[in-house]
Amino acid sequence: MIKSLVLSTLAVSLVMGSSLAKQARDAGLIPIPSDKLIMRKLVDNPKNKITNAKIELGKMLFFDPRISKSGLISCNTCHNLGTGGVDGVAAAIGHKWTANPHHLNSPTVYNAVFADAQFWDGRDPDLEKQAQGPILAAPEMAATKEHVVNTITSMPGYVDAFKKAYGDDVKINYENITATIGLFERILVTPSRFDAFLLGNKKAMSKGEEEGLKVFIDKGCTTCHTGIALGGSMQAFAITGQYKYADVGDFKGDKNGLVKVPTLRNINETAPYFHNGAVTTLKEAIVEMGRIQLGLEITDKEAASIETFFQALEGKKPKIVYPQLPNPTASTPKPDVN
Amino acid sequence: MIKSLVLSTLAVSLVMGSSLAKQARDAGLIPIPSDKLIMRKLVDNPKNKITNAKIELGKMLFFDPRISKSGLISCNTCHNLGTGGVDGVAAAIGHKWTANPHHLNSPTVYNAVFADAQFWDGRDPDLEKQAQGPILAAPEMAATKEHVVNTITSMPGYVDAFKKAYGDDVKINYENITATIGLFERILVTPSRFDAFLLGNKKAMSKGEEEGLKVFIDKGCTTCHTGIALGGSMQAFAITGQYKYADVGDFKGDKNGLVKVPTLRNINETAPYFHNGAVTTLKEAIVEMGRIQLGLEITDKEAASIETFFQALEGKKPKIVYPQLPNPTASTPKPDVN
Repeated sequence: MIKSLVLSTLAVSLVMGSSLAKQARDAGLIPIPSDKLIMRKLVDNPKNKITNAKIELGKMLFFDPRISKSGLISCNTCHNLGTGGVDGVAAAIGHKWTANPHHLNSPTVYNAVFADAQFWDGRDPDLEKQAQGPILAAPEMAATKEHVVNTITSMPGYVDAFKKAYGDDVKINYENITATIGLFERILVTPSRFDAFLLGNKKAMSKGEEEGLKVFIDKGCTTCHTGIALGGSMQAFAITGQYKYADVGDFKGDKNGLVKVPTLRNINETAPYFHNGAVTTLKEAIVEMGRIQLGLEITDKEAASIETFFQALEGKKPKIVYPQLPNPTASTPKPDVN
Repeated sequence: MIKSLVLSTLAVSLVMGSSLAKQARDAGLIPIPSDKLIMRKLVDNPKNKITNAKIELGKMLFFDPRISKSGLISCNTCHNLGTGGVDGVAAAIGHKWTANPHHLNSPTVYNAVFADAQFWDGRDPDLEKQAQGPILAAPEMAATKEHVVNTITSMPGYVDAFKKAYGDDVKINYENITATIGLFERILVTPSRFDAFLLGNKKAMSKGEEEGLKVFIDKGCTTCHTGIALGGSMQAFAITGQYKYADVGDFKGDKNGLVKVPTLRNINETAPYFHNGAVTTLKEAIVEMGRIQLGLEITDKEAASIETFFQALEGKKPKIVYPQLPNPTASTPKPDVN
């Protein structure tokens, strides 16, 4: 069903698109559909379908720092929806100002739904499962499942919102709290001028951006940066050995040494780069990727051209009304900053 | 001008109000006007008048963590607009997880415009001046003026927003950055059912809330908790001596030992209580205030009644669309988490 929707979207654009757009699609690049209903189908969870009530609840949970041990860290702290879905620091900072022990950089939550797997080592299959991790991780939100469940169930505002989302019989537990956060994250997709271009609008990108796209394809960047996310699959990555920044952190990828390819959407908003945040400029990131992943030299001029293309990947963010969170009660667990 | 607007609002409500509403007004309690234009007049800064462009810019700055040294702490971190304008912890936590050295609790930013002075020791006259403090304070956002100005001026999105707000000739400096944050904070007012009651809607509060208001007035709470803010003036406060929690923190008030009276608006959202956050329940706060400030005993039943009244002070928050913050550039200062 979803596949056929995507294919029909592609079929339309194939007729309309320029030859460069066709070349891009042949290289595996897929647009975010412009039709809102198709988009929602594409990102939906068949086992827990998106509704407005669930999204509204998931948004509240995403922004609520009280599910962390300290009461100070929310999902939005590291995946800030106002700054490209990231925190802008090299290694994530969590409870008691602890840096990520493996020196891992917070990936953007925008368009994360389009990834094949979640986390840099791809250990979780979807956003619902992913959301279970950082809340409990000691160097991140440092909570326990009990803290999270007790916090949420102590507030009538949350209990009502769960009933509204899942029916009066809902049992509020850690799994459906985190699943609802994941569901909210599914709608965080950002259609861009690049998508409009792939869908047939020949004027959507500037000439410079088109040239950059051509270099991007010709150099072979689409080997890994492909699909809707321009990334999101697990790939061999030269973490050690010839990787110039291999000594930053002890991350080794998954059991096969594979690392998740980050999305390039909104990449000009999500510095610093790579899994360890060791590279601060796009130019350096592009050149380094050519060197260690493609085994070729990308000149400064080519890198600049690719960087120009990346501007077309800056997408329109969903409008988020900042949520008013439910009032605590006497039984709400107290924050613990220690 | 402003005074006459308030008086005319009061004149209308005097005719309509119940005798309890009259009693409340006689005790110095003043409603937030229901008319949006009057409200804006009331909170405006005559020297830097509110416009939509300034408010939009001020909102961006309020939510932008990049003005802090670490890039991780924004005004909204401690004055979270989703949780009553506070952080919920006893003493504010800032840069490198440093607790406020005087063990001071973050006051709510909602309705702060109605206070006579800002900070617990009342050292600043208005929100514009107040906003200059925490950004530079080492245990809070730990920035320098240079960091803030360089950060903002490095992003074309901000420069454009300043021009839109203040004209093409605007010189972006620390003073107008913080003044714009203060201006945004001026509109963070929360009209409540209590205001509707004072303005003549006899059904706006429940019978229990009306009874609580009566106890509140009869006990003399309005001696300090008065005006539009139900607080906000500098008063003698038993920080030392008979104050049960006097050993929490070394805060001594202003040079005359006076302490700012916190607003009671949205008080059921802003635990823990008092300048040092040492009291976690409203009941205990009410009883303790009777004991040390009014020199009388407030029974558990009376405290519960007053607490019921406080529910009517929970106000409607302004709708805030979460801002998309300007993209950084190569010259944007890098975050420093150390």
